[in-house]
Amino acid sequence: MTRIAILGATGYTALELIKILPRHPGAEVVAVTSRQEGQPPIAMIHPSLTDRLDLRLEDLTPAEVAARAECVFSCLPHGASSAVIPLLLATGTRVVDFSADYRLNDPEVFAQWYGQKHTDPQRLGKVVYGLPELFRDQIPAAQLVANPGCYPTSAILALAPLLKNGLIETGDIIVDSKSGVSGGGRTPKLTYHYAECNESISAYNIGRHRHTPEIDQVLTTVAGKPVEVIFTPHLVPMDRGILTTAYARPTGRLSEEKLMQTFDEFYADEPFVRVVEHLPGTKDCAMTNYCDITARLVRGRVLTISCIDNLIKGAAGAAVQNFNLMLGYPETTAL
Amino acid sequence: MTRIAILGATGYTALELIKILPRHPGAEVVAVTSRQEGQPPIAMIHPSLTDRLDLRLEDLTPAEVAARAECVFSCLPHGASSAVIPLLLATGTRVVDFSADYRLNDPEVFAQWYGQKHTDPQRLGKVVYGLPELFRDQIPAAQLVANPGCYPTSAILALAPLLKNGLIETGDIIVDSKSGVSGGGRTPKLTYHYAECNESISAYNIGRHRHTPEIDQVLTTVAGKPVEVIFTPHLVPMDRGILTTAYARPTGRLSEEKLMQTFDEFYADEPFVRVVEHLPGTKDCAMTNYCDITARLVRGRVLTISCIDNLIKGAAGAAVQNFNLMLGYPETTAL
Amino acid sequence: MTRIAILGATGYTALELIKILPRHPGAEVVAVTSRQEGQPPIAMIHPSLTDRLDLRLEDLTPAEVAARAECVFSCLPHGASSAVIPLLLATGTRVVDFSADYRLNDPEVFAQWYGQKHTDPQRLGKVVYGLPELFRDQIPAAQLVANPGCYPTSAILALAPLLKNGLIETGDIIVDSKSGVSGGGRTPKLTYHYAECNESISAYNIGRHRHTPEIDQVLTTVAGKPVEVIFTPHLVPMDRGILTTAYARPTGRLSEEKLMQTFDEFYADEPFVRVVEHLPGTKDCAMTNYCDITARLVRGRVLTISCIDNLIKGAAGAAVQNFNLMLGYPETTAL
Amino acid sequence: MTRIAILGATGYTALELIKILPRHPGAEVVAVTSRQEGQPPIAMIHPSLTDRLDLRLEDLTPAEVAARAECVFSCLPHGASSAVIPLLLATGTRVVDFSADYRLNDPEVFAQWYGQKHTDPQRLGKVVYGLPELFRDQIPAAQLVANPGCYPTSAILALAPLLKNGLIETGDIIVDSKSGVSGGGRTPKLTYHYAECNESISAYNIGRHRHTPEIDQVLTTVAGKPVEVIFTPHLVPMDRGILTTAYARPTGRLSEEKLMQTFDEFYADEPFVRVVEHLPGTKDCAMTNYCDITARLVRGRVLTISCIDNLIKGAAGAAVQNFNLMLGYPETTAL
Repeated sequence: MTRIAILGATGYTALELIKILPRHPGAEVVAVTSRQEGQPPIAMIHPSLTDRLDLRLEDLTPAEVAARAECVFSCLPHGASSAVIPLLLATGTRVVDFSADYRLNDPEVFAQWYGQKHTDPQRLGKVVYGLPELFRDQIPAAQLVANPGCYPTSAILALAPLLKNGLIETGDIIVDSKSGVSGGGRTPKLTYHYAECNESISAYNIGRHRHTPEIDQVLTTVAGKPVEVIFTPHLVPMDRGILTTAYARPTGRLSEEKLMQTFDEFYADEPFVRVVEHLPGTKDCAMTNYCDITARLVRGRVLTISCIDNLIKGAAGAAVQNFNLMLGYPETTAL
Repeated sequence: MTRIAILGATGYTALELIKILPRHPGAEVVAVTSRQEGQPPIAMIHPSLTDRLDLRLEDLTPAEVAARAECVFSCLPHGASSAVIPLLLATGTRVVDFSADYRLNDPEVFAQWYGQKHTDPQRLGKVVYGLPELFRDQIPAAQLVANPGCYPTSAILALAPLLKNGLIETGDIIVDSKSGVSGGGRTPKLTYHYAECNESISAYNIGRHRHTPEIDQVLTTVAGKPVEVIFTPHLVPMDRGILTTAYARPTGRLSEEKLMQTFDEFYADEPFVRVVEHLPGTKDCAMTNYCDITARLVRGRVLTISCIDNLIKGAAGAAVQNFNLMLGYPETTAL
Repeated sequence: MTRIAILGATGYTALELIKILPRHPGAEVVAVTSRQEGQPPIAMIHPSLTDRLDLRLEDLTPAEVAARAECVFSCLPHGASSAVIPLLLATGTRVVDFSADYRLNDPEVFAQWYGQKHTDPQRLGKVVYGLPELFRDQIPAAQLVANPGCYPTSAILALAPLLKNGLIETGDIIVDSKSGVSGGGRTPKLTYHYAECNESISAYNIGRHRHTPEIDQVLTTVAGKPVEVIFTPHLVPMDRGILTTAYARPTGRLSEEKLMQTFDEFYADEPFVRVVEHLPGTKDCAMTNYCDITARLVRGRVLTISCIDNLIKGAAGAAVQNFNLMLGYPETTAL
Repeated sequence: MTRIAILGATGYTALELIKILPRHPGAEVVAVTSRQEGQPPIAMIHPSLTDRLDLRLEDLTPAEVAARAECVFSCLPHGASSAVIPLLLATGTRVVDFSADYRLNDPEVFAQWYGQKHTDPQRLGKVVYGLPELFRDQIPAAQLVANPGCYPTSAILALAPLLKNGLIETGDIIVDSKSGVSGGGRTPKLTYHYAECNESISAYNIGRHRHTPEIDQVLTTVAGKPVEVIFTPHLVPMDRGILTTAYARPTGRLSEEKLMQTFDEFYADEPFVRVVEHLPGTKDCAMTNYCDITARLVRGRVLTISCIDNLIKGAAGAAVQNFNLMLGYPETTAL
């Protein structure tokens, strides 16, 4: 039984984690933290957790966390996460970090996109990017795993097989993504105010969404040469789910059959990637750790369609998958 | 051409008003106010108003407002409205007040439900309640009209004909109302955060919603004896619309035909009440100033179903209807 | 390992069942039936089941079903279910029936509300109503269990403790229920067409919804005297969830504390009923087998608010709960 | 006063038209047709029209239509429209056709994309494409105007100014569009069944959506050389609205300022195109005839974002705009 602490437990990704972990025979949540005053029971923040997790939110120091838990899921925002994680690592605690703090290899790139200096720069470049479909071998031994961003998961899983096999050009990739509103977090803002975003779709953060360098970096690793994508996120009036429509140019003659066969082979043994013939909708993956992928060839252009539940495969589910690999549980446990 | 100022123009009811008034041949919006800093163009706050209203939000004194406008629509919150309105009235300006400040007759009742002392108590009891279907005669001469609340409009229009005709008991009325989220206003709060209220329905403010005494007061006037309703509001995952299901006990033998006939007669000449045979949905009235009403008799109990667009017949449309009556325009102008 | 067949597997309740059962260590789905031509893989009907259940839809006779499965979940519509179940029972197969066919005790009442003669009338009155919170003792030995309707579950769980303890009058109960659209089934109809029911709430089937006699019957049993409720269902623009607001008259002096204490005691040992202080929303129970209940006293009237996921506690989850009791598995298994 | 008939009046575009036309001082709807049996009042089909249009649906011959109306809006499906329109034109009646029947110039292209032979091929190539922003001069004299498709309107208005000015390559245009569900029409289908499409986004008809050749054709005309776009439509869980994100490659050095300036100049005098600095959402245009457009330059690629209300600027509003031009009313009348 692995004792688990969840840092920053008031948000949606933490909530999802708390719903998944009770199904895990080897995991016990022993602490949930927040700076929330008064140490309220977590069920007071998330009423859906009534009778499901009998813990209070506590404002614990890293040392207190480390004393209680063997493994920590950090759901803190970027910046806050890297302020705490080095202290946890020093105690030998293992960490899955939901923030972007340890996803990028280059502190300069981090500073450029996140507008702040990284406080733990020497660790960058040595942290495993926790996308098991690409980096499974490195996860079991890792003390710290950077859990991938939601958009990057949907884009990378769709494009990696094609880049790996040299089937598409690296210099002409468009990633048009559509996300449900839970991706914006739980802090009330006008953008996510019901009467503003309901019955409306819009693009946002064009050209400056922080998941861009993350997609670039992983696809560059996979392709073996520089990839820079055009990434456009959209906000869709639904709770959860990401659909990514990617456009790429084939390097040579290519058929839809070849495309699908490439996906089939790449993901043949993957428990959470479903290569499908039909055009998947985000609802197909809702509440699951699956990523559904398909591809089409249209007027000589490659299209991929991929979808995930942004809170599961895009966050909490992926984190549990990483946890399973790190702690030696079967990879699909609780998922 | 009547020059109009709108106070508190950043909210949804003001927005709706601004969309209705350009269709009005006799109305010209000359000022929109807000404490918003920097006097932004209103289209910066409400992008849908781009090219539709070329005004900046200004932080004007009542005197400045009165100097520019002949008629004021106050969309200020309760408390704030009654701080300004006496000053406007003193200048001769005519006012339609969207807030609850002048709806109740009794300052004690106001204090009890709103948790604050009324600052203009001597005026209470002398202000016209702007529901034309009941008080049309009093509106043309009024300098100040209290625009009805959204829930009260839906409940009162359904119950008044039955109480007026003595068909239902006054002591056993249940009002179960369901409202879209725009009714909660435009200020971001967790309750109205998309991922919280989407895909969920819940009751709120049971037994203490501030529209209760307003419904009581008007129905008491209509019935000629005390009415106290059980009022339960619910939040429904949709932008706009209120559906009110009311339950009452017949005073004597009653048929569905008699019920419907009573409604038909009561509303025979009303331009904005549609007595319908079918069970109406809020969508039928969306974006219109209509109130749809029907009735059923179930196991000896009277049921009424009424629905409105909370932002139109429940706010901005009713205000324009009042404005038309006050200023002598045909009542349906722009509606 | 219990071998399970699901009859009528193309609908939403069957889909939900198929998603729950893989988490059950003692259950194996061995057959899924439908009159659908061509025996398509079930994942072709429900793409979300891709890689999750590798079965084809088959058009099997009762004998064929009985030869394969020890326990049958019948998700057939009323009428169709009672045509098949007697044949299954004759083979010794155990059955959980999702339809209304065996819920009512009186064939006359069935005929009156369902507009057709019951084809297996002599069995009525002897079938266990599968609401474990009220009839747990009878379920383990039952060969056939009538799985409760979704609305009745939400209404009965809220009202039974009060009637059982004589706290409310039997003759004055109003049940105002609000349901998500999945309750209407998977067959395309204008009523459930997205652009018709989205952004709209409406009441339907007032005075003639078929769940009325079911609520009456169970509450009558609980109260020990006749109960006839006024039941008004509403269609809410959301996928799933039922919120029931019930109104009743106290038999004597009553406090909110006493109300809550009654619920607390009645449901003290229940794994799936959460008596809560706050006003619950349907989202709190979404995707779970919980029923959340609270109560208020407003102007001398008792209000109860209860909510469930109509597809889980209102259908598939309750069925698995019954299955667990029937087959001797821990009651909460897989839930 | 122009007498108007609406053919195929049971669908959503006709409904929208019927809501717009009463605001038009020069238009009177005198007939609404449908093959619906029993000549029901149109308010029985669309309850929102109660008291708004007192006409019955009739199954009229073209001659009967022509005898009553001077101008016809045909909301019939493709194929059905071209079966009737030649007969109407022969009587001198003027027609705005909502279907795709007269949008394409080449019968071969029609046959290829619509899977049927055109029955009035000799007229193709001579019909005005009713997008006033591009073809205003041709509309007043036209007897028949082909009302543009909803997706094409959003795509063409965004791309035409750039192609006209030679700012983007013709051979590398991606059009990623997202539409609300009303675009799928009013006939119940599983795809548009609430519980299927709610809370889900998906792509559909990739590579074979029938609006593709329409976009190609108009952009080819504008560019003066062949344009073939990659067009991907998506279904978004909302009632109405289309957002189109288009990607193109600049022909030379280009700045965002230049892009925006091009739009500003191109649409300087257009009453219904709003070139905006912010990223527009479909809600900004909902219930209006506006098209909001903006552009960005990302990593050397041109992005345009455009949005419309698919039922207004994408159908009924555009039709009224065409009607105004054809009949000599001010272009913005009733819009």
